[in-house]
Amino acid sequence: MAPPLAVTMGEPAGIGGEITLKAWLARGSDVPAFYVIDDPDRLAALARKLGWDVPIRPIANPQEALSHFGEALPVAPLGRSPRARPGQPDLADAPLIIEAIEAAVRDVRGGLAAAVVTNPIHKESLTRAGFRHSGHTEYLAELSGMKEGAVMMLVSSELKVVPVTVHLALKRAIEALSAAAICHAGRVTDRTLREDFGVAAPVIAVAGLNPHAGEEGTLGEEEGEIVAPAVVSLRESGIDARGPLPPDTMFHAEARRRYDAALCMYHDQALIPLKTLDFYGGVNLTLGLPFLRASPDHGTAFTLAGKGTARADSMIAALRLAAQIAAKRRLRA
Amino acid sequence: MAPPLAVTMGEPAGIGGEITLKAWLARGSDVPAFYVIDDPDRLAALARKLGWDVPIRPIANPQEALSHFGEALPVAPLGRSPRARPGQPDLADAPLIIEAIEAAVRDVRGGLAAAVVTNPIHKESLTRAGFRHSGHTEYLAELSGMKEGAVMMLVSSELKVVPVTVHLALKRAIEALSAAAICHAGRVTDRTLREDFGVAAPVIAVAGLNPHAGEEGTLGEEEGEIVAPAVVSLRESGIDARGPLPPDTMFHAEARRRYDAALCMYHDQALIPLKTLDFYGGVNLTLGLPFLRASPDHGTAFTLAGKGTARADSMIAALRLAAQIAAKRRLRA
Repeated sequence: MAPPLAVTMGEPAGIGGEITLKAWLARGSDVPAFYVIDDPDRLAALARKLGWDVPIRPIANPQEALSHFGEALPVAPLGRSPRARPGQPDLADAPLIIEAIEAAVRDVRGGLAAAVVTNPIHKESLTRAGFRHSGHTEYLAELSGMKEGAVMMLVSSELKVVPVTVHLALKRAIEALSAAAICHAGRVTDRTLREDFGVAAPVIAVAGLNPHAGEEGTLGEEEGEIVAPAVVSLRESGIDARGPLPPDTMFHAEARRRYDAALCMYHDQALIPLKTLDFYGGVNLTLGLPFLRASPDHGTAFTLAGKGTARADSMIAALRLAAQIAAKRRLRA
Repeated sequence: MAPPLAVTMGEPAGIGGEITLKAWLARGSDVPAFYVIDDPDRLAALARKLGWDVPIRPIANPQEALSHFGEALPVAPLGRSPRARPGQPDLADAPLIIEAIEAAVRDVRGGLAAAVVTNPIHKESLTRAGFRHSGHTEYLAELSGMKEGAVMMLVSSELKVVPVTVHLALKRAIEALSAAAICHAGRVTDRTLREDFGVAAPVIAVAGLNPHAGEEGTLGEEEGEIVAPAVVSLRESGIDARGPLPPDTMFHAEARRRYDAALCMYHDQALIPLKTLDFYGGVNLTLGLPFLRASPDHGTAFTLAGKGTARADSMIAALRLAAQIAAKRRLRA
């Protein structure tokens, strides 16, 4: 039987608690079994406050989650309660937030969890508490002993995008862009399309960096110097990469039918089309790690926290996709 | 009676000719009267080749266009025929392409045309022939005696966007970004929303430059140093500007309902959401000139040229919008 998914607490001042409760309430509708690494008391209090019928079931190990999931939300308890209140993060919670992530990684690496599904963190609070990673993905890569190589893919019903550079100021992203990074992302994308998504002959659209993809050099040199050589190199290794394409004309409905995933040169080139087309249902996948990680593609949403109005679509989509891909990987292993 | 719209030939190797013929063929469906500054022989030959029934009517001055438009396409003849063939631009055509633009500007400034509607040009061909402007908009600004100050607005049924920087390599766009440019674009946008679009109390969403709008400084400094001060300055002058907003979460359907136009920091931040949502119907408006200019928001499409398959939606939308705005401006004058 497939092990359950491990869900992290995330930033306790954000909407993580309530979207986790909502995902459990939707368990009849094809939501795979999961447990959350969190504080049982806080979740019980949150459910009470919102008037939601969510029995909380502390568990001693992930396996117990499977038998209890139908009747109660299984919670692997953190050692203590976070101090944050909805919308008001507390720096003292940083170690607890990190502890939840580390426990989830331990469980999945030990074969006790099928995949890690992370609730949103608030990087600024963690940074001020001494966290030195530029994001969740980068932290998970380090926990896996990888210096680099983790690749982010955003998946929605309309589009799959892979930003080659991620959490960098735009100026820095341009400086950091390299043919090697594009090739690495292209290879990981090709493999995940084949293995995790079952695409027999994936086509990967590669965006240019500049307006009109540099317009033959008049609007930028990076296409000629970095992107085009990377496309050639990917094609030589048998990957059907196409580009560099003008970024503004590659995301409309007809254009999207011509490829399986788009390789983007910077965060917003990937995230703008994805979230414009499907704001609520996107899933963030981390590829290239020794385990699968998925998460909703939104943040902590402090202004909504504690009200029960935040939509759990993205969390539920993340749980479903993580379970599907984990099952495919298990079959292959 | 309103004067006709002046349409330019554009790059004769592109789809300009056929979308102009198509727009005339659609004249029954609320397409305003226009004339095209082009070579009558080439347009007649193109219509014949495509099997389209478009009588060509050379005119001596724009006023004649109004009486002939119902029965024939009015053409203000250029002095000679272009040498390009579909898909194959010819450098020798550059003076003719420019002559058409200059004639249109002369007509509109002289009150003989209501607005200028330009067919796409191919900047690289013009540049190689000595054209030194970074685009159509910049050239029109110079023809109007303006060193700077022209503002591009892209309009579709879903969204209005104004890129503060336009045809620059991304790296250069970041360097060129200034609070003064954002304020200027914001003021022109506010005025056009009120005067040209009849919005009584316009709301302008201002995008950040960096991922997550810089995430309070951890992902970039430009929000704090450039964008936020510009928003403050616009608000102080009574303009309802809001931002800097995270670029990836401001273009989905719910977010778009909260503003009338989005001010974007670079070309693709504006063009990606616009063209993702509406690839065929977008219109490019040039604001801040002494006259109105509109154009389809696509290029020359050499690969489609001469086949008759190119869609004229954007050209027709440009003609309609130009006529509507010109009528509003005439009422006000």
